Amino acid sequence: MQAPDALRALVESYLSELALTPELGGLAEPIRYALGGKRVRPTICLATAEAAGGTVEAALPAAAALELVHSFSLVHDDLPAMDDDDLRRGRPTVHRAFDEATAILAGDALQSLAFGHLLAADDPRAAALARLLAEAATRMVEGQARDVEAEHRPLSEAEVVELMSTKTGALLAASVAGGAACAGGRVEDVLPAGLKLGLAFQIADDLLDLTADTRTLGKRAGKDAARGKATLPAILGAEEARRRAEALLAEALATLEPLGPRAEPLRAVARFVLSRKT
Amino acid sequence: MQAPDALRALVESYLSELALTPELGGLAEPIRYALGGKRVRPTICLATAEAAGGTVEAALPAAAALELVHSFSLVHDDLPAMDDDDLRRGRPTVHRAFDEATAILAGDALQSLAFGHLLAADDPRAAALARLLAEAATRMVEGQARDVEAEHRPLSEAEVVELMSTKTGALLAASVAGGAACAGGRVEDVLPAGLKLGLAFQIADDLLDLTADTRTLGKRAGKDAARGKATLPAILGAEEARRRAEALLAEALATLEPLGPRAEPLRAVARFVLSRKT
Repeated sequence: MQAPDALRALVESYLSELALTPELGGLAEPIRYALGGKRVRPTICLATAEAAGGTVEAALPAAAALELVHSFSLVHDDLPAMDDDDLRRGRPTVHRAFDEATAILAGDALQSLAFGHLLAADDPRAAALARLLAEAATRMVEGQARDVEAEHRPLSEAEVVELMSTKTGALLAASVAGGAACAGGRVEDVLPAGLKLGLAFQIADDLLDLTADTRTLGKRAGKDAARGKATLPAILGAEEARRRAEALLAEALATLEPLGPRAEPLRAVARFVLSRKT
Repeated sequence: MQAPDALRALVESYLSELALTPELGGLAEPIRYALGGKRVRPTICLATAEAAGGTVEAALPAAAALELVHSFSLVHDDLPAMDDDDLRRGRPTVHRAFDEATAILAGDALQSLAFGHLLAADDPRAAALARLLAEAATRMVEGQARDVEAEHRPLSEAEVVELMSTKTGALLAASVAGGAACAGGRVEDVLPAGLKLGLAFQIADDLLDLTADTRTLGKRAGKDAARGKATLPAILGAEEARRRAEALLAEALATLEPLGPRAEPLRAVARFVLSRKT
């Protein structure tokens, strides 16, 4: 059983060694640049694999593929035609550091690399895992489309929750489901925790946008409010939103109870989701 | 054995029925809009499946996935930051008919749908096919990156050939390889034909850009020359380029000789690649 930091270090080393095909040519650099981050999804995937009685090693290809898909979505979300962000993880966004065409293509390649990498793994479950990832990616993109469209009109609380569960929730749930599947475990045992974690994660993200400063956050803070974007903190107030996130986390942890001590790293990552400062 | 037109009709009907997940919401319309086209890749895939002794039906999911990936690449290639095209298949491009954010996201979803659809097919070869598709998609995107970068400098003939074999050749070769794999055939038997066809196809495309008018082509004609883009017709002249394409086609047809009469539809599609007017 490994602590979240150890899992994160494993992901880090795996991703840095991940054989970026030499054919990527000029895209290799923006792709590596785009692959910074907190590794929340892959760490959740590995911790769930352990919680479900599997090994971390068997889950590494799926964990890496999740991070590649997540990174692709950030690169495209940051584009001028989308969120138009200049700063991500304390550095210029990909289209700022390179150019827009490069950012579009690097995002596209990150997605195809995710599937190529996962399917190249010598694992009979690769097809099922890749299907799970593909379906989560489609839901995530659809959520992002809904998010863009929602900027033009006010959303109800239920609509915001539905939006969060596609835009952020789908890939976080897939991280949990993928980890369980890698361990040969039952996806149903952990999926409720994944869905709740996804919502808690997005609320925490929206709270940080509201309360943290740009330097700490590494990306532009306060932009949701500036755009009048509907988030749970905007609708319910920061305090009530935080209470909701904590309740979701408690519910997620409760559903992990039957897994016993093996799920301790997953519980620790779940708690980090809410306590993180960036 | 079915004529290319019958194969094309099969693809058309399969794609129109392809269960676009209801979760796509607002992206369903731009995605369907983006899915117009000549169906060259899926038809090649089906014809190769027949040539390799398999059934057309078993190859339909792979054929559809190839068309989804091809369409994703067109939607993104047409974006203002890329080729900045207003017209495609006689209609406004996706970012013109909808908007830029929608085009970016529809392209992203077309890619994830391609993998999701292929992997949802009840076929033990799905993982191998999806891997083949992912690797071709990565090569295609890298080729497009190289194409964008190449607009700023002159290319040698060898560089242009290399560019064509990634940007266009990779997915065409995958169409042939995928068809063979669906039939349980040996990919090596048909791959040389696929690679040659890919090059012939791109030369034909560049010749059409040079000689056809915008109305016939359904997309803006003459833009390569206007941009001083390096193409084989630009480097060798139209006549010599056409001779090369015909030689490549003849070589491709020669490699299909051992497959006998079963490969007749594939030969017909191969001939169409060169004789087409749009």
